[in-house]
Amino acid sequence: MNYMLRDENAIYYECGYSSDNALYLKLGSEAYFLTDSRYEIEAKALVRDAKVVIERNLYTKANEILKAATIKKLHYDPKEWTLFAFEKITESLTITLQAEPDLSHKKRIIKSADELEIIKKAVKLGALAFDQLAKEIRENGFKKSEYNLTYMAKTALSSYGEYELSFDPIVAVNGNAAKPHALPTPDKLHKKDLLLVDAGLKYQRYCSDRTRTVYADEELTFGVEQKFKSKKIQKAYDTVLKAHDNAIEKARSGMKANEIDALTRTVIEKAGFGDYFVHSTGHGVGLDIHEMPYIASKSDTVIEDSMVYTIEPGIYIPNEFGIRIEDMVTMVDGKVEIL
Amino acid sequence: MNYMLRDENAIYYECGYSSDNALYLKLGSEAYFLTDSRYEIEAKALVRDAKVVIERNLYTKANEILKAATIKKLHYDPKEWTLFAFEKITESLTITLQAEPDLSHKKRIIKSADELEIIKKAVKLGALAFDQLAKEIRENGFKKSEYNLTYMAKTALSSYGEYELSFDPIVAVNGNAAKPHALPTPDKLHKKDLLLVDAGLKYQRYCSDRTRTVYADEELTFGVEQKFKSKKIQKAYDTVLKAHDNAIEKARSGMKANEIDALTRTVIEKAGFGDYFVHSTGHGVGLDIHEMPYIASKSDTVIEDSMVYTIEPGIYIPNEFGIRIEDMVTMVDGKVEIL
Repeated sequence: MNYMLRDENAIYYECGYSSDNALYLKLGSEAYFLTDSRYEIEAKALVRDAKVVIERNLYTKANEILKAATIKKLHYDPKEWTLFAFEKITESLTITLQAEPDLSHKKRIIKSADELEIIKKAVKLGALAFDQLAKEIRENGFKKSEYNLTYMAKTALSSYGEYELSFDPIVAVNGNAAKPHALPTPDKLHKKDLLLVDAGLKYQRYCSDRTRTVYADEELTFGVEQKFKSKKIQKAYDTVLKAHDNAIEKARSGMKANEIDALTRTVIEKAGFGDYFVHSTGHGVGLDIHEMPYIASKSDTVIEDSMVYTIEPGIYIPNEFGIRIEDMVTMVDGKVEIL
Repeated sequence: MNYMLRDENAIYYECGYSSDNALYLKLGSEAYFLTDSRYEIEAKALVRDAKVVIERNLYTKANEILKAATIKKLHYDPKEWTLFAFEKITESLTITLQAEPDLSHKKRIIKSADELEIIKKAVKLGALAFDQLAKEIRENGFKKSEYNLTYMAKTALSSYGEYELSFDPIVAVNGNAAKPHALPTPDKLHKKDLLLVDAGLKYQRYCSDRTRTVYADEELTFGVEQKFKSKKIQKAYDTVLKAHDNAIEKARSGMKANEIDALTRTVIEKAGFGDYFVHSTGHGVGLDIHEMPYIASKSDTVIEDSMVYTIEPGIYIPNEFGIRIEDMVTMVDGKVEIL
């Protein structure tokens, strides 16, 4: 298949290097990596299995290469290309242009052994960072705002800048945790509060992702065993943990994603919290923090060995509290292995 | 003019609020802001002069609104829209779709008095952060890696998470500074090194941007007066500063951008470093870190009062050192005012 890529991670996956201004063309047995002179040194050292082309105007150059190529059809992902870039690159081409949504994500849905090793390391570093963050919050986090705690999370997850983050961490106290994508506020953490932290880091460009919801006191840890003073919160917490554990225990390769989604959703519905689980059960993780497979009620993707995804049921009671427990998993010999 | 916008900053400019999943439609006297339920509370509180529409699928809803509207032509920026989104939104529409590259950036090229006040504050906070960073490097920065120093820069610029950054800071030592967009390395800062820092922060969503190149010893400051031990470095430094000062002194409203570019470039060429000034003189700054006007040898944009842009000449000697001095300026009564 002949295809062209624009997305930075899609290109990295093909040739082991990318930059924020790159193009990749796969034309028969030839491959081309195009970038500008700012990235020449790194590109020439790191790109594998593709010819490195350094150019100021990537679109014009790609158009030239395509015109000279003896191909009949070119595939592209319409989610990856702006109208402007696509028009420049395909100007006066006489070949067939074939839209292929999620072209790269589909290729990346099953992870190789090498990728799994890297992802395991990312998850392990992420877990260690949660432990470090717990220590810092115990010593220094009470009476601090969500702004400050978010910064503390960035510091711990990045290990003072050594690692990139998978995304801006979510650090939310009590009612703020009821927003699944909470932005930090000036609200402060006090003892006896509920604290939700959703954060991850990148190791060799692969993402980790984890959420814990905990009772915040001088013994705060990010373990899954938590005791809240409020019976309502404890009931919701136990339900989310049960839903999380149910999916981990019963998910199998060969199931459809919506069947795995149902493994968390039915537990939460039976406990009477069905209206408060407002998102899907999980998402694939790899070079992108959100990729295939999506573990959602409307997804009939068949789950296979060596896919990597999150299991992250939640219960969100507006203005009161939110609970989410998230782990990354992969499928080994048909069953779930927690990463 | 009827138009549709997808870019977060383009939308913020129109209605005072935006989110990472929003659409904006301006149809005659009506305006619509579309986002999903995660942002409902903020959108309803903050969007001005537009009807807030909360929907799961923004493309389908925008398509419905467009079908119901009594308009004949709709403008869009082909750089803002993916093929996928554009196709969904414009499906079965019978109106004329008019490409208008840089639609929003063109509207934003001249800053209002209110915008200038905010930008001045961003630049001032950025300058104070450079002072703070200098202090921290003097006390704690020697023998630290570029990774650690980059993190130190992030901490100072964000004021421990209070402000967003304009971009990931560039912190480069000696030969690493020869790459205009250097990524951090494990290389450490030692006394007598050359240190380049390029960094900025956002205040009320507007960006600051500044670069300083300095001699690193126990008296390190980010002022423009610098003394290097190496005569070659000092000659290059004095040349860059002269080029920077020449543009600030002689740029006038009414000049074309390429004439302002020439004000730095000729100084560097005359000193014999012409081959080592590998980028353009500057770029506009506002809600985006790079916007119009571009101060480049091929740009004939006419510079006017209340435009905001950088002046940032540089000299980059591969594997030896790189020097760049960057300030943000605006035009007042026809002349340059440094921000």
